[in-house]
Amino acid sequence: MSLIVQKFGGSSVADAASIKRVARRIVHAKRAGNDVVVVVSAMGDTTDELLELANQVSDGPPARELDMLLTAGERISMSLLAMAIADLGADARSYTGSQAGLITDGAHGAARIVGVSPGRIQEAIADGAIPIVAGFQGVSHDTKDVTTLGRGGSDTTAVALAVALNASVCEIYTDVDGVFSADPRIVPAARKVPFITYEEMLELAAVGAKVLHVRCVEYARRGDLPIHVRSSFSTHEGTFVLSPEAIATAIAEGRAMEQPIISGAAADVNDAKITVIGVPDKPGEAAAIFRALADASINVDMIVQNVSAAATGRTDVTFTCAQGASATAKKALEAQRAVIGFEALLVDDQIAKVSLVGAGMRSNPGVSATFFTALADANINVQMISTSEIRISVVTTVADASRAVQALHTAFGLDADGEAVVYGGTGR
Amino acid sequence: MSLIVQKFGGSSVADAASIKRVARRIVHAKRAGNDVVVVVSAMGDTTDELLELANQVSDGPPARELDMLLTAGERISMSLLAMAIADLGADARSYTGSQAGLITDGAHGAARIVGVSPGRIQEAIADGAIPIVAGFQGVSHDTKDVTTLGRGGSDTTAVALAVALNASVCEIYTDVDGVFSADPRIVPAARKVPFITYEEMLELAAVGAKVLHVRCVEYARRGDLPIHVRSSFSTHEGTFVLSPEAIATAIAEGRAMEQPIISGAAADVNDAKITVIGVPDKPGEAAAIFRALADASINVDMIVQNVSAAATGRTDVTFTCAQGASATAKKALEAQRAVIGFEALLVDDQIAKVSLVGAGMRSNPGVSATFFTALADANINVQMISTSEIRISVVTTVADASRAVQALHTAFGLDADGEAVVYGGTGR
Repeated sequence: MSLIVQKFGGSSVADAASIKRVARRIVHAKRAGNDVVVVVSAMGDTTDELLELANQVSDGPPARELDMLLTAGERISMSLLAMAIADLGADARSYTGSQAGLITDGAHGAARIVGVSPGRIQEAIADGAIPIVAGFQGVSHDTKDVTTLGRGGSDTTAVALAVALNASVCEIYTDVDGVFSADPRIVPAARKVPFITYEEMLELAAVGAKVLHVRCVEYARRGDLPIHVRSSFSTHEGTFVLSPEAIATAIAEGRAMEQPIISGAAADVNDAKITVIGVPDKPGEAAAIFRALADASINVDMIVQNVSAAATGRTDVTFTCAQGASATAKKALEAQRAVIGFEALLVDDQIAKVSLVGAGMRSNPGVSATFFTALADANINVQMISTSEIRISVVTTVADASRAVQALHTAFGLDADGEAVVYGGTGR
Repeated sequence: MSLIVQKFGGSSVADAASIKRVARRIVHAKRAGNDVVVVVSAMGDTTDELLELANQVSDGPPARELDMLLTAGERISMSLLAMAIADLGADARSYTGSQAGLITDGAHGAARIVGVSPGRIQEAIADGAIPIVAGFQGVSHDTKDVTTLGRGGSDTTAVALAVALNASVCEIYTDVDGVFSADPRIVPAARKVPFITYEEMLELAAVGAKVLHVRCVEYARRGDLPIHVRSSFSTHEGTFVLSPEAIATAIAEGRAMEQPIISGAAADVNDAKITVIGVPDKPGEAAAIFRALADASINVDMIVQNVSAAATGRTDVTFTCAQGASATAKKALEAQRAVIGFEALLVDDQIAKVSLVGAGMRSNPGVSATFFTALADANINVQMISTSEIRISVVTTVADASRAVQALHTAFGLDADGEAVVYGGTGR
């Protein structure tokens, strides 16, 4: 008998009919002979509605109370789901994050899981019951206050529980069929990726693919836990997120095809580009800029420094950060203007980060050449470049982003009917 | 510095504007130099809305899950109230029943408080914060599951906390000005009762006055805790529920007037009358009837047994119970028909229990005479009678109930402009 953790997001439990549908799916997995543990998010728009109430009573709700408020959302969805399962004749019991043993630090609104003590969940499983656990929430180990995990929290709850319970797989149910080689709304020929490594999934999540959150994938990688991303509206297999070794085993056993060099392309339009103009080109200037940003808790993504103009001895420093943080970043830099000595600040919100991700980049030279040729052929101007071992990202205008993703998707043979590309050259 | 527990019901926190108004009231009490602990119910219709959701997903929701669901209601109201208080510059922290140490038995939906361990509340008070506690809910001492206290639960939470914290008073805020000598919708001349004993309040609560629930008054009496029932819409003093000794002290100190003999009259139209016709008049027959009812968990209120008809050796037994229980009662008796040997069952839902309550009955003869004379003068037929030391109750038709309450209210000089009545006679 294997233990499966199933996670259902808010859109999967948006109303009574959806909850009953999900309940049937859960009971089906249980009756097929598995132990099943369920993690559930708040129903549909509940979280937004609660936030709206908070804004009605307060100009700046304390984070502790906001967490107390928002955790009511999963309390409602999880108890309703347990009722719907009971109505089908199975035994279901709902548990808050605290009851399920999700222990976190005290960072309200963005708490980190520091331990999982799933004693009550294990008891319920031993009793033959189906535990329904509230996603997104935990309890602070020092204050005993209720906490929330922030963005992607329910996925992280599911993976953390699955690791602690030594589950065979964590199934993340969503409203798409799995992880795609690109957003199908941008690239109609995008195809479902049947297998992907944790590393590739991490890069994709970091560059704007919204299927899974970085934290949850990171947690699964550390625990070597298979994730199965699949649709709650069909019974098709979705995407398995695994270690390279597990994928190699699947290939050897004929369960998977040879992996493509590139897994996917994505565009993230939520960043802003800030250029600090006329910075004196001497040691410590860049440090002063990024110290000011760090002190303001700004996460900086890409950084480019121009070659200094010999005549002036000054240079420009350009970086990207989340659009929501650009105003704070600008303010923090203006406040340090005398210290840094720059001439002007330019903020551009109309940018996109276009990325290509694939574990095969490591061993296949020529990927960069194909990448930049494809963008050049599509007449797309590149403003900034950054790379990791398995990713190439460039900044383009927002207007060019979709065309860039489409061009890359085609150039790397990812279109559903495309041919695999043969790489030549001397590496990127 | 005195410690005040303030309890606000659902109508007092029905929307954002109400929550902000209540927050101002709480902060005012705190800034006046008191320690304040707040107990709050779910917002307005939240509980009904959650029950409706439960009915949409299940034909018979498990009690444990229903409790988990309903307790989301106070979680929302208490965190919003804490936010609104924080917005006024005071420190407020919300606590679930479990966090506040409300330990109960495991009877989901109707749990009894078995202990209060308010350590976290005391810490918050010591920090100068205002603890906001979820009413109506607790945690089972053996299963650690979330429980609800059933009807009147939030009042009971407030009183239990106030007793455990040794508060000087528990203020119960409601949408009326206090306890009235009769329902003002029935008796326009009804007046607010400034002081009332626990015993009188218990009798009034038991006979249909809805201001306070029996459990909460019982708990306050055991802890000798003053309750102050008052309006959340005005700053007038309401009704103090106290021990007779505390009232005597208040009178001696000039804070209270001499107490009237009668505190109030009330009608309860939620009972049904069941007559078991033709029961063999021999020992054990009544026992068989009430054993059958007890086995079906029916709470029987008034009981009358006719004098046996000599010709038949049979008698009629009449009792009252809650209307909601009459169908179950009928079924339980029909099932035992062979054992009990009765001839027929009559169920009458169109009855009212009309009651007069006053601690002064004990020492003032003639109350019964005045009572029945008043009803006779109003041409009201009495079907059943029951009394306690400080209460007289009769069953009338529903149609007569309001007139009966009005007649008694006037006869006992309770009308706002009425004269006190001089009692004569030889006791009732």
